[in-house]
Amino acid sequence: MELIVQKYGGSSVANPERIKKVAGRVAGYKKKGYSLVVVVSALGDTTDKLLGLAGQISKNPSRRELDMLMSTGEQISVSLLAIALHELGCDAISFTGYQVGIKTDSSHTRARIINISTDRIREELKKGRIVIVAGFQGTDNRHEITTLGRGGSDLTAVALAKALAADACEIFTDVEGIYTTDPRIVKEAQKIWRISYEEMLELASSGAQVMQPRSIEVAGKFNIPLHVRSSFSQSEGTWVVKEDKSMEDVLIRGVSLSRSEAKLTISGVPNKPGIAAEVFRKLADEGINVDMIIQNIGKSADTDISFTVPRSDAQAAMKALKEISSKVGIRDVSQDTEIAKVSVVGVGMRSHAGVAASMFTILAKHKINIEMISTSEIKISCVVKKKDGERAVKALHKEFKLGKK
Amino acid sequence: MELIVQKYGGSSVANPERIKKVAGRVAGYKKKGYSLVVVVSALGDTTDKLLGLAGQISKNPSRRELDMLMSTGEQISVSLLAIALHELGCDAISFTGYQVGIKTDSSHTRARIINISTDRIREELKKGRIVIVAGFQGTDNRHEITTLGRGGSDLTAVALAKALAADACEIFTDVEGIYTTDPRIVKEAQKIWRISYEEMLELASSGAQVMQPRSIEVAGKFNIPLHVRSSFSQSEGTWVVKEDKSMEDVLIRGVSLSRSEAKLTISGVPNKPGIAAEVFRKLADEGINVDMIIQNIGKSADTDISFTVPRSDAQAAMKALKEISSKVGIRDVSQDTEIAKVSVVGVGMRSHAGVAASMFTILAKHKINIEMISTSEIKISCVVKKKDGERAVKALHKEFKLGKK
Repeated sequence: MELIVQKYGGSSVANPERIKKVAGRVAGYKKKGYSLVVVVSALGDTTDKLLGLAGQISKNPSRRELDMLMSTGEQISVSLLAIALHELGCDAISFTGYQVGIKTDSSHTRARIINISTDRIREELKKGRIVIVAGFQGTDNRHEITTLGRGGSDLTAVALAKALAADACEIFTDVEGIYTTDPRIVKEAQKIWRISYEEMLELASSGAQVMQPRSIEVAGKFNIPLHVRSSFSQSEGTWVVKEDKSMEDVLIRGVSLSRSEAKLTISGVPNKPGIAAEVFRKLADEGINVDMIIQNIGKSADTDISFTVPRSDAQAAMKALKEISSKVGIRDVSQDTEIAKVSVVGVGMRSHAGVAASMFTILAKHKINIEMISTSEIKISCVVKKKDGERAVKALHKEFKLGKK
Repeated sequence: MELIVQKYGGSSVANPERIKKVAGRVAGYKKKGYSLVVVVSALGDTTDKLLGLAGQISKNPSRRELDMLMSTGEQISVSLLAIALHELGCDAISFTGYQVGIKTDSSHTRARIINISTDRIREELKKGRIVIVAGFQGTDNRHEITTLGRGGSDLTAVALAKALAADACEIFTDVEGIYTTDPRIVKEAQKIWRISYEEMLELASSGAQVMQPRSIEVAGKFNIPLHVRSSFSQSEGTWVVKEDKSMEDVLIRGVSLSRSEAKLTISGVPNKPGIAAEVFRKLADEGINVDMIIQNIGKSADTDISFTVPRSDAQAAMKALKEISSKVGIRDVSQDTEIAKVSVVGVGMRSHAGVAASMFTILAKHKINIEMISTSEIKISCVVKKKDGERAVKALHKEFKLGKK
């Protein structure tokens, strides 16, 4: 019997009515003869509500206690979905992460899955039951409750699919699949039917928020076919699969936009070895993820370094840099939150030269100034002024001919 | 170091402000040098809200899934209280029932505690931490989450006090203690400073809703001193302790009123052996608790049986009786929900005759008709018309001289 792991996001189970709809959908799959493991996120904005309660008590709550608190959200969803499936006459049983043996390390609020002991799930599947598992959570070796970070339910689904050697993993969300760009910005955006893990990972990391990047990485590593689709319609979504030859025919798979970063510039840095190392070590120690880095070396004795960080970390980064500025010899630190990052992604770039040049030409033609550039094997990203972000996306999407024919 | 188990009810932790107040109180005890284990109920009406969600999906949700759902309420409270204590600079750690090894049987929604393995709690207490435990919940031998039924957090507190050999168990609630009767009905009602387990049990079973009866039973069995007091004031509450000689000097400890029962009457029952057994076996099979039972045997070949059940079970009881009526030969079944039960309780009754006669005389003097009577060694209960309930309580409280001098 074919085994499918399905994941339903928070908006798909936002209220009892929607939970009933999800139950109907799951029951339909069961009738078709599939074995089913269903991973569910917390109802709608439950996680934010719980964080709000904690926020009324403390500005800086303990991460262990936050995990204790937030993990209740998914426990509520799974029990309600089980109840809804029973109501449809389906045999279903819900479990917490702990109960199905999802073991993680002890990094509260951003734990990594170490192992999944699938005995209980297999036992229940053998009885013909639909198994419902709370996403986003696990326990460490002391039975402490941990959570997997934002989008962690995707990771639960993919990790379960791997542990159970499932035939596919379906990610149900509030969009119809992955598009060539955000359809809210470009109405000609097209649904992508097949995309490689690498492309999907680059798109997710550069602004497309459909799936958690880490879960795509794991799916790719273990070659688990992902089907990203809408929980509100029956239409086929996007299959995320292993790269094949035909994919290289497409130069650009998609264009993404990120408006959640800030650019920091440190100026008057002594132009000598070890300074950059010291600066970025300090940021790493503070848990701040740095994305793009640019260093301009002029003729003078000192230099400027610019880099981007998640906007939510900008204040913390400024503070960290000021702490070491006199020791390292930094003259000034400034930040710019009015930026946007535009990226084009496609495995076709590997075999086609000149994509970067085309991108710069298109932006120049539209009088959009580029502030920073970074490239990978299958991606080119440019930082532009925030006000130019959407215009840049529209221009690139059109000139690279990604729209509907 | 003296070890105290404290339990805070749902109204004491209804919102972040109140949770902070409870934290302040707990921190105060810690500063005085006590070792502390704190049991918390779900925030305010959380349990009802969760049941409401389930109710929108199914009229008859699975009890296993209800336990999964409801147990989240206490998990939210304990984490928030831990965060509030951290904010006050106290070292505190929260646990679910599972994490501190509260093992129960598998009777979902009304499980019984089988064992508590106190290793983790003792380890944390040794580190000087305040241990916060989710009330109302445990897990069975398959790690299934169970709950202990209404008022179950009281039981968690008492069971922990027993398992840890605590010096006392304090029950913090929204009233100042146990009163001679409900102060909302009789403003002269006096706080009782000391009461025996047995008296407290009879009062709780006959309408006083301050504590869960089963938890009082367990406290009595293991002689754990209980202190029932307000979480909103500093004043001393009521100590529930082992009966001593001096308690017998008081004839009546308190008067209680229950308005949550219904009276069912089955008429035209054949007057032959085995009929009553069949009737009450059927009700027991349906999980309906019968309280008072009266049978009138007249001169005719058939008889009437009246009994009381919780009002919420009245419909189910009617249905069950109708199912067996033709088999057993019952002519008619009727119900009366317009009743009240008035009880007087006191260990002094054991050594003083005539309390029942006095009670009946007082009610007669106030023209209150008695419909049913039941007695125990230390309690006399009368069922009266619902409209007469409060009047009966006032009369008994006054004539037995329980009011303030």
